[in-house]
Amino acid sequence: MATIITLTTDFGLNDAYIAAMKGVILSINPEAKLVDICHTIKPQNVLQGAFIFSTACHFFPKKTVHVVVVDPGVGTERRAIILRTPVADFVGPDNGVLSYVIEQYGVKAKASQVRLRQEAEAVALTNSRFWHLPVSSTFHGRDIFAPVAAWLSLGIPLAEFGEKITSVTMLPLPRSYPDKDGSLVGQILHIDSFGNLITNIRNEEVNPKITVEVRKHVIKGLSRTYAEGEGLLAIVGSSGYLEIALKEGNAGAFLGARVGDKIRVRFQQEAANELPGLRKRS
Amino acid sequence: MATIITLTTDFGLNDAYIAAMKGVILSINPEAKLVDICHTIKPQNVLQGAFIFSTACHFFPKKTVHVVVVDPGVGTERRAIILRTPVADFVGPDNGVLSYVIEQYGVKAKASQVRLRQEAEAVALTNSRFWHLPVSSTFHGRDIFAPVAAWLSLGIPLAEFGEKITSVTMLPLPRSYPDKDGSLVGQILHIDSFGNLITNIRNEEVNPKITVEVRKHVIKGLSRTYAEGEGLLAIVGSSGYLEIALKEGNAGAFLGARVGDKIRVRFQQEAANELPGLRKRS
Amino acid sequence: MATIITLTTDFGLNDAYIAAMKGVILSINPEAKLVDICHTIKPQNVLQGAFIFSTACHFFPKKTVHVVVVDPGVGTERRAIILRTPVADFVGPDNGVLSYVIEQYGVKAKASQVRLRQEAEAVALTNSRFWHLPVSSTFHGRDIFAPVAAWLSLGIPLAEFGEKITSVTMLPLPRSYPDKDGSLVGQILHIDSFGNLITNIRNEEVNPKITVEVRKHVIKGLSRTYAEGEGLLAIVGSSGYLEIALKEGNAGAFLGARVGDKIRVRFQQEAANELPGLRKRS
Repeated sequence: MATIITLTTDFGLNDAYIAAMKGVILSINPEAKLVDICHTIKPQNVLQGAFIFSTACHFFPKKTVHVVVVDPGVGTERRAIILRTPVADFVGPDNGVLSYVIEQYGVKAKASQVRLRQEAEAVALTNSRFWHLPVSSTFHGRDIFAPVAAWLSLGIPLAEFGEKITSVTMLPLPRSYPDKDGSLVGQILHIDSFGNLITNIRNEEVNPKITVEVRKHVIKGLSRTYAEGEGLLAIVGSSGYLEIALKEGNAGAFLGARVGDKIRVRFQQEAANELPGLRKRS
Repeated sequence: MATIITLTTDFGLNDAYIAAMKGVILSINPEAKLVDICHTIKPQNVLQGAFIFSTACHFFPKKTVHVVVVDPGVGTERRAIILRTPVADFVGPDNGVLSYVIEQYGVKAKASQVRLRQEAEAVALTNSRFWHLPVSSTFHGRDIFAPVAAWLSLGIPLAEFGEKITSVTMLPLPRSYPDKDGSLVGQILHIDSFGNLITNIRNEEVNPKITVEVRKHVIKGLSRTYAEGEGLLAIVGSSGYLEIALKEGNAGAFLGARVGDKIRVRFQQEAANELPGLRKRS
Repeated sequence: MATIITLTTDFGLNDAYIAAMKGVILSINPEAKLVDICHTIKPQNVLQGAFIFSTACHFFPKKTVHVVVVDPGVGTERRAIILRTPVADFVGPDNGVLSYVIEQYGVKAKASQVRLRQEAEAVALTNSRFWHLPVSSTFHGRDIFAPVAAWLSLGIPLAEFGEKITSVTMLPLPRSYPDKDGSLVGQILHIDSFGNLITNIRNEEVNPKITVEVRKHVIKGLSRTYAEGEGLLAIVGSSGYLEIALKEGNAGAFLGARVGDKIRVRFQQEAANELPGLRKRS
């Protein structure tokens, strides 16, 4: 069956690890349609993998099988899972690499565990019948996740792959929060290849009259495009989040910015007591 | 339909932007055959994108749909177009990123505008029915070019996508020119991964007896292969242009060469008055 | 026919050379299923290409056509070949880039020549009917190997491509060897994107009680996973070879290791005369 199988890993582009996974998949389902999402996730950076994956996965057709492998715990007791939602199947380690997907389908239980709501289901991968044997202890991408995804793409029922589980792991996602003074504090989630800083402040939370503070720079107003205005721009981003860009340049390099850096959004009403009319009152 | 859709962008390999485009395409035409041409065009370098794309596009079968997105003006008034030639369809911003294709099908009109000859046609993309809605102002690759390419690959007639246009944008391409002394002056268009310098002097313009001057080095004669001779070589290149290579090395690094550097080709007749037999005459 | 064609090259990711090959292939066999194995082999490093390719090729289904092009001698007298084994077809220059495949199907003849055993066969590519004409002297990947692979994927009989040959080129592969003191001396074959050092000592040659010496560091015992123990780890690798890893880090960077560096594996029996109980005897 010509099911789409996507691949997201931290394997880099200098090895043949991804190709080995593809060979395993195509040996099981020769008609699978393979699409690479990203393979340059920083080694073992589960949260970055979760975020990058989340910016593309919902653009794929229903019933796509997504394989996501950023897996520092490979070979240990961490579970391997399939998560099935109404839109797609997700295959990977149960270490939070699917956090942005789980966020939409789960309810926080305890610690990093999230109980899946009714519309989603999951199994722990325990049935070795669907694995590439012998299973290595260091490359489950090739030996477990790839073959499971391939069998899944052929329509094998979920229950065949292992026992049903009701809760899965979700990492604490970096959230923006309102500060006492009414401003909104967020952080940089990702710096893209253009040097644009993608923040964790959602487009819906901002308006054209904001002021943004980032690494001691102040940006007034919100731009619609990278070509507007001058210098640093705050932009309504295409992934749903506020972005900082540098017109005709690389904002990340210019600011020396890093993932995790704080940014602050101020709204017009905050500055109310700065307005001349109001000052008179005091 | 199993039409081939190629993708060329400056999006780099560290994000999921290209994957988002592919997801959009496959949601519309699940049978499209996706081929990446290059995604590491320098950010916003339209001319480099135009050149790299031109070295591969004519090797694809007829009716291929090529999506080319290097688009610093995304979200502004710059037009988005489909260009149809007898060999393929091209989808992208009307900013010159298709210059090397347009060169073959157009006649210079005024400034950077080129009037298309009869065998080519173009439309401006204005019919939002074929877009991925809501359209962001910063990622038309995903929201306009990808879905338009997908619908085009399904056979939707050109006229449905927007109004017909008769002229399109072409950037001034760096040309070689003959110098007063009879030599030919060109420049480096591109430095490839091997460090080979690809110039804008066409293979047809040179012969085995040339002398090439580049960054104060002189190369005598023309080599057929990278394994001939010693040191720096001038080579009949596979993309149709004269190349400079370093035997078993990286010419770009060795010479400290950059795109845009001048090179000079001298022909044998120039050196005629240096020949002993001729000297006697004076 | 939907045959799989894989591509391995040293062409890098910044050019459109690989895309040109794919265009040529799809022009001949529009249904070919293209899979990239690796394109960031170090320029002209035939042995590295041979090794990286060997870590993935045997995971692909039978009858896959593998194109492997690391080809410093392109355009010279070096032969171009198809090697057919019971599991797959291999297309590339006859310069040793298929050494790890040939190792399994050949018997050393003289110098770097290996006589193929009965189950394998090979032809030299001499029939230009299956080439992309005119053939350049610097890009046989596009002009010879790609079109030959495409025709091969359509079922053209091997004999049509050129004359049968009985021996092919194999590079001397770096082998581990036992030292006088009973230890095993190997070397680093490859450093992967995680910084793991892949050695040429096979997993079968080691046991959990080894001690590994690498760049003045000593690692005691063998780990099953990257998450075990502390610091440097010796690991049973997924490609069949002993690996050195750094827990939560990059072993290559930490050790300043390079391909070719020596490593030494000591076995428990060696240390016998160091045991207190035995010392008393002397």
